[in-house]
Amino acid sequence: MKALEFIDGCVRYLDQTKLPHEESFVSISDERELIDALKSLSIRGAPLIGIAGAYGVVLAARRFATLSPNSFHSNLKDSIEAIRSARPTAVNLSWAIDRMDKLRQSNQTISQTQLCEKLLNEVRSIHIQDEEMCSRIGSFGATLIPTQARVLTHCNAGALATGGIGTALGVITTAARQGKVERVFVNETRPLLQGSRLTMWELMHANIPATLITDSTGPSLMRNGLIDAIVVGADRIAANGGFANKIGTYMLAIAASAHKIPFYVAAPSSTIDFSIPTEDHIPIEMRDQSEVIEFHGMAVAPAGSEAYAPAFDVTPPELVTAIISERGIHRPPFGATLALIGERRVEEEGK
Amino acid sequence: MKALEFIDGCVRYLDQTKLPHEESFVSISDERELIDALKSLSIRGAPLIGIAGAYGVVLAARRFATLSPNSFHSNLKDSIEAIRSARPTAVNLSWAIDRMDKLRQSNQTISQTQLCEKLLNEVRSIHIQDEEMCSRIGSFGATLIPTQARVLTHCNAGALATGGIGTALGVITTAARQGKVERVFVNETRPLLQGSRLTMWELMHANIPATLITDSTGPSLMRNGLIDAIVVGADRIAANGGFANKIGTYMLAIAASAHKIPFYVAAPSSTIDFSIPTEDHIPIEMRDQSEVIEFHGMAVAPAGSEAYAPAFDVTPPELVTAIISERGIHRPPFGATLALIGERRVEEEGK
Repeated sequence: MKALEFIDGCVRYLDQTKLPHEESFVSISDERELIDALKSLSIRGAPLIGIAGAYGVVLAARRFATLSPNSFHSNLKDSIEAIRSARPTAVNLSWAIDRMDKLRQSNQTISQTQLCEKLLNEVRSIHIQDEEMCSRIGSFGATLIPTQARVLTHCNAGALATGGIGTALGVITTAARQGKVERVFVNETRPLLQGSRLTMWELMHANIPATLITDSTGPSLMRNGLIDAIVVGADRIAANGGFANKIGTYMLAIAASAHKIPFYVAAPSSTIDFSIPTEDHIPIEMRDQSEVIEFHGMAVAPAGSEAYAPAFDVTPPELVTAIISERGIHRPPFGATLALIGERRVEEEGK
Repeated sequence: MKALEFIDGCVRYLDQTKLPHEESFVSISDERELIDALKSLSIRGAPLIGIAGAYGVVLAARRFATLSPNSFHSNLKDSIEAIRSARPTAVNLSWAIDRMDKLRQSNQTISQTQLCEKLLNEVRSIHIQDEEMCSRIGSFGATLIPTQARVLTHCNAGALATGGIGTALGVITTAARQGKVERVFVNETRPLLQGSRLTMWELMHANIPATLITDSTGPSLMRNGLIDAIVVGADRIAANGGFANKIGTYMLAIAASAHKIPFYVAAPSSTIDFSIPTEDHIPIEMRDQSEVIEFHGMAVAPAGSEAYAPAFDVTPPELVTAIISERGIHRPPFGATLALIGERRVEEEGK
């Protein structure tokens, strides 16, 4: 199962809002439809959002391919910015879009057909890199999971959220393949239930014992000694190691710290945004109130209810045991250990 | 609006599973229907469960009234035990049932009609006492709420859960009537959404500004300085001040402690069970897995998913700032301050 592919000039994606009841694939050839799919969370998960956004640039370039060079570039630039602003919190989208736009800017003299080809190659390489990154994150992370582990995860940072086996869930499935996972406790992840709908679906497909819980149950399990490790993903990591992830992550981090349970964050190193000094500077996307007030289009609170619906919360670095990236396991003090990644990234880009 | 009344020989209750969309009242005259209503949570909230259970004893006594004295008492005793076991965690049920059974035992020589009358008077006095207790809890508790307070509550411990204005929500509505409450943040309270469905409904009826949030959002609000106090109810309080309440309460208590926000427990003193030394000895009711797997009756996780669905969790006394009862505000060390209540209770019962 591929959550997203590029086939016959179209982006073909699994509509994640329809899971777990329906495995519905949608093919689109217009980047505006892709923006809608990102906003509606039909395509979601920070790394997959980046890949999808980059494919969106290809769709736009192809749509404008027959325009004059000036119109082509100005239209494409507008589309690139529209894609970039589809989801504000995940840095991966901005990172992938920057990579695509840089290619566009440095290739203004070649034919538009050639540029389309180059853009497609670029996103294919982003996609393959992401797949490799997931595998590496899984291998590094699995070394941190003890035997007979009962692991708690939140939201979905699995194959449905990435170009590969996932980040947090990739760590768990890799450890499970090594025979180390006794059971995964899955937070249902209100309001959009990515845990119930997506993570449970992935774990059942992978034949890994999984138990669904409501989001406020985890701390009680921790108190009862039933959780050995917590692994979550990240939408953006600040230079100090603080990070943003699905609303509810911070609560788990506080509870893990109170019970001295290791709390791991698994994400590709591209999730680290060195322009953001601390977690408190990460922009937080607000979702529509109806996501909390309604369920599947049916109101569960009285008519006229107000709700507060941030998509993410932030967790300070002092609550994080280690960050797992494709470059290894990063321990506190994160300011220093993450800065090393930044230096290596600059070196590599200079090559 | 009365959540439960005794009219024309029937218990008339508001079916809380139908709220907020439908205000549906049901009248029953058989205690077996009452047991079903308790199990399905059509009638819920620890104090109201106690009152309802006591009315159930009256219904049973009336149903058996024409039997021979031996059959009457043996049938009534069986019914009393069936009612007692309808919900295992709330101590109020057991407390009210004990009071009714004691009356039955000490009146074996009077006519069955007279006993029915006595039992009805007893539950009416329990009901009125609960109403008065709620008012006193509200008044004591309101003194703890600062001006312009942003208060967080969980589940429903309001008029729908008691014979009066409620316990935790009674504190909040009393403080609001004194002009001290800027806003109430209401945890939706998965799995059964008593927060969205019931507490939001009560607050909107009372014209108190309320904002609905998912259960894992509170800790992030606390971190952002948006919560001044947390007030919750209790289903059973142990002799050490630890207590059981709706699943998710423990998470709030940990987060409140981490952010130095006062965490108050409001409950009638009958909620204190001196036979239970610590919170870890409180029996915890498990609910059907379907409550987590389904949302509003619709499956949200893949078919065959396993779930873990405790109705309650326990919070240790060191996370509690104060317990508010109809007897006053009780501060740590709770072992000593609660023991005083126990002594006064014994004195009063001796009178």
